[in-house]
Amino acid sequence: MISSADRIYLDNNATTVLDRRVAEFMSRAISVDHLSTLGFNPASQHQEGRTARRCVEDARDGILSALKCRTKGMESDRLIWTSGGTEANNLALFGLAQQHPGAVIVSAIEHPSILESAKKLAMHPSQRVRILPVDSHGIVRLDILEQWLHDDHQLGQPVSLISVMVANNETGVLQPIEEVIKLGHRYGALVHSDAVQAIGKIPLSFALMNVDALTLTAHKIHGPIGIGALILRGSLTMEPQLYGGFQQLGLRPGTESSLLTTTFQEALRIALLQQSTTANQMRQLRQNFEVQLQNELPDIVIHGAAVERLPHTSSIGFPGCDRQAVQMALDMAGIACSTGSACASGSSQPSHVLAAMQVSDELLQGSLRFSLSRFTTAEEIDEAVKRIAASVRKLKRQQLFSFSTSNPTIG
Amino acid sequence: MISSADRIYLDNNATTVLDRRVAEFMSRAISVDHLSTLGFNPASQHQEGRTARRCVEDARDGILSALKCRTKGMESDRLIWTSGGTEANNLALFGLAQQHPGAVIVSAIEHPSILESAKKLAMHPSQRVRILPVDSHGIVRLDILEQWLHDDHQLGQPVSLISVMVANNETGVLQPIEEVIKLGHRYGALVHSDAVQAIGKIPLSFALMNVDALTLTAHKIHGPIGIGALILRGSLTMEPQLYGGFQQLGLRPGTESSLLTTTFQEALRIALLQQSTTANQMRQLRQNFEVQLQNELPDIVIHGAAVERLPHTSSIGFPGCDRQAVQMALDMAGIACSTGSACASGSSQPSHVLAAMQVSDELLQGSLRFSLSRFTTAEEIDEAVKRIAASVRKLKRQQLFSFSTSNPTIG
Repeated sequence: MISSADRIYLDNNATTVLDRRVAEFMSRAISVDHLSTLGFNPASQHQEGRTARRCVEDARDGILSALKCRTKGMESDRLIWTSGGTEANNLALFGLAQQHPGAVIVSAIEHPSILESAKKLAMHPSQRVRILPVDSHGIVRLDILEQWLHDDHQLGQPVSLISVMVANNETGVLQPIEEVIKLGHRYGALVHSDAVQAIGKIPLSFALMNVDALTLTAHKIHGPIGIGALILRGSLTMEPQLYGGFQQLGLRPGTESSLLTTTFQEALRIALLQQSTTANQMRQLRQNFEVQLQNELPDIVIHGAAVERLPHTSSIGFPGCDRQAVQMALDMAGIACSTGSACASGSSQPSHVLAAMQVSDELLQGSLRFSLSRFTTAEEIDEAVKRIAASVRKLKRQQLFSFSTSNPTIG
Repeated sequence: MISSADRIYLDNNATTVLDRRVAEFMSRAISVDHLSTLGFNPASQHQEGRTARRCVEDARDGILSALKCRTKGMESDRLIWTSGGTEANNLALFGLAQQHPGAVIVSAIEHPSILESAKKLAMHPSQRVRILPVDSHGIVRLDILEQWLHDDHQLGQPVSLISVMVANNETGVLQPIEEVIKLGHRYGALVHSDAVQAIGKIPLSFALMNVDALTLTAHKIHGPIGIGALILRGSLTMEPQLYGGFQQLGLRPGTESSLLTTTFQEALRIALLQQSTTANQMRQLRQNFEVQLQNELPDIVIHGAAVERLPHTSSIGFPGCDRQAVQMALDMAGIACSTGSACASGSSQPSHVLAAMQVSDELLQGSLRFSLSRFTTAEEIDEAVKRIAASVRKLKRQQLFSFSTSNPTIG
C-alpha cells in the first residue's frame, strides 16, 4: 500500500536509480578484498593490470554483443568508454566533424550536449551547421533533410555528418532513424544517433540500423552515473577530444575503470533480459496514467500522443498553468517530475523540444515531463494521478483568486 | 607471514586499490535502499535531486577545505569535477590557453595528458608552446624558465600559461612549484600544476601555493577510478571543453555523480587523516628498499636520489638490463611494478622523464619504477628485494649465456 507520505519518482529520464542487482554487483566487486581484482589499472602490464584489462574488454565486448554490433573480423565495431552521454555526444560531433570535413546537420530536438556542441562547431568560420526542424508531432522533417542533402550535394559542399537521436528525451517520440541513416548514406554523410533514452526501452541493433556512431549511458538504465560510451562503426576514424595516454587506441585517453565499465555492462544485461515485458508493462502504466489524468483534467494535452513514443515517457501540457509552479507543487505533494531535460534545468527558458514542435505559447509555459521506469507500480500511477489532479486544480483556484484580487473590478 | 606465492604490489603510482574504508563507504552508499539518496540527478529540481545536489556540493566543499582553498567570499576557489586526471589536465591546458592567449610553457617531465595536449595546442599556427627542460636530478630549470619569461615579455609576446607538476610520477622528484608560481606571476602568467601524485603524500595548501589551477584524481589516493577534479583560483575564467547542460556553471557539463564525488572526498579525508605518519612510514620503507637493493645489486642507480622526492616512489636503473624483460621477470616472480607511466604503456619508447634528465642510454633501457602505498609492509619490502635481486641476477646470467653462445669465440 502506498501512503500519502510516500514519494513517487516519475523523473526516470533525468536519471534512474540503481537496480538492486546492479548495486549488489557493484558492492560485491568492491568488497571482494582490499586488493580487489577490479581495482587495478587496465593499462598496467603486470598480472593485476591484465586482469583489470580483461574485465574492461569483456565489458566492452558484452555491450557490443548485446547491441548486435559486429564483434568479429577486420570491420569490428568499436566501443569507446566515456564519462557519460554528454562526453560521448561531444566526442561524436567534434571527433567526426573534425575528421570528416563538410556541413553538419543536427535536429532541433537534440539534447543540449549535441545542440551546444553544434553551436560551438558553427563558430568556426568555415563550418556550416544546420538545425533540422521537426513537425508538430516532434518528428524530424525527412523531406527537408533530403532537400538539404540534395542541394548541398549539387552545390559541391556535401553534408558530412548528421546527428539525430533515436527517441526524444522529453516527449519520447521515436525518430525515423533508419530513414535518416539511409538518406544520409545515400549522400555520403555519416550518421550519429543519441540512443541514451532508447536503450533498454526498445529493441536496438547497431548492425541492422547501420548507424555510424551511437551514444549510450549507464545511468538511464539503472546503472551508475559517470560511465557512458560511443560505439563507432567498423574502421571509422575520428579525432580524439582528449589527449594523453594510449588508452582506447588514443581515441579517449584516461584510466579506464573496470568497476564502472563492468557495472555498465551488467546494467545493460539486466535491462535487456526482459525488455519487451518491461516495455509493455511501462506502456500499459503510461496509458493508465494518461487516460486517468485526462479524465480528471480534460483540457490537458499529451505531446506526441498521436505518434510512436518510448513506452515510459509522457510530456503533458497543462493549459493556463506555469510549469515551474506545477513542478514545485507536485514536489511538495511527493511527486518528482521535471520541466524538461535535467541538463537544461537552471534555464528559465521553456523546452526547446516543444518550441520546435510549435506548441502554443500557453502550452509551452505549462508543460511537464513524467517518466516511468520498470520499477514504477500501478499503485504509484493511480496515486500520482490523484495528486497531480488535486495539485493542478488547487493551483488554478489560487491563480483565479490572485487574478481576481489583483485585478479588482469593484474599486 | 608473506609466502613466496603472495604477490607484492609496487605500482601504486599507476593506481592504488580502494582503501577498505572507502570501499565500505561506497557499498553503504549504494546499498542503503533501492531508492538511494545518492542515486539521483543533482541537476533535478525536485527533493530527490536537491538531496543529490547537496551531496555533490558537500563533497566539493569538503575537498576545497581539505586542500586549504578559499571557500568563502567573492573570490572563492572553484572545484570542477572531471572524469579523472587526464580530463582535468586537458581542461586546464586548453581551457586556460584558449581564454588567456599567449605563449605556453610546460615542463619536459609532465604526464602525457599535459605533453600531448601541449603538442595539440602547438598545432595552431599562432600558438607558441615551449618545453621546459630539467636538470640531471629531474628538476625543472628555473633559470631557463626565468629567461624565457623575461625574453617573451621583452618581445611583447608574454607567456600566458605555465604547467609544471608538483612532483613527478616516475621519479617522485619534487618540483620547485612555489618558485615557478612566483616567477610566472611576476611576468603575468597563470600557473597550473598537476598534483595527482603529490596529494595525500605531502602537505599541500592551494592558498599558500597561490597556484591558479590544480589537478587531482581519486584513484591515486585509494579512491575509485573515474573521478578527478580541477581546482580553479577565485574568479579565474576558462573555456569549457565539453558543451551541453548547465552543470558546473557550464564549465564542465554532464550529470555529476554523487556516489563518485562523495567517495572521492572520503578517500581524500582518509588520506589526509594521518598523512605525515603514513608518509614517514613509506619513506622509511622506501629507504629500506633502496639500501637493501643496493647491497644486493651495487651497480643500480636510483634516479633523483640526491634531491627531495615523494616518499613512496623509487625509480631505479639496472645497468645492462632490458626494462621490459625485468618487468616481465618480476611479474612472474610476483612483483607488480612498471617501466614508466601506465598511461605511456603500449609505447615501446623508454621513459621521456629519464630521457629529459639525460640519463645514459644504458640506464634508460634498464629503468623501472617501484611505488609504495600506505598499505605496503616491511615484510613485503624485504621479500621484494630478495625477488628483485634474484630475478635481475638470473636475467644477467641468461644474457651472458646468450651473448657467449651467439658470439662464439671458438668456432
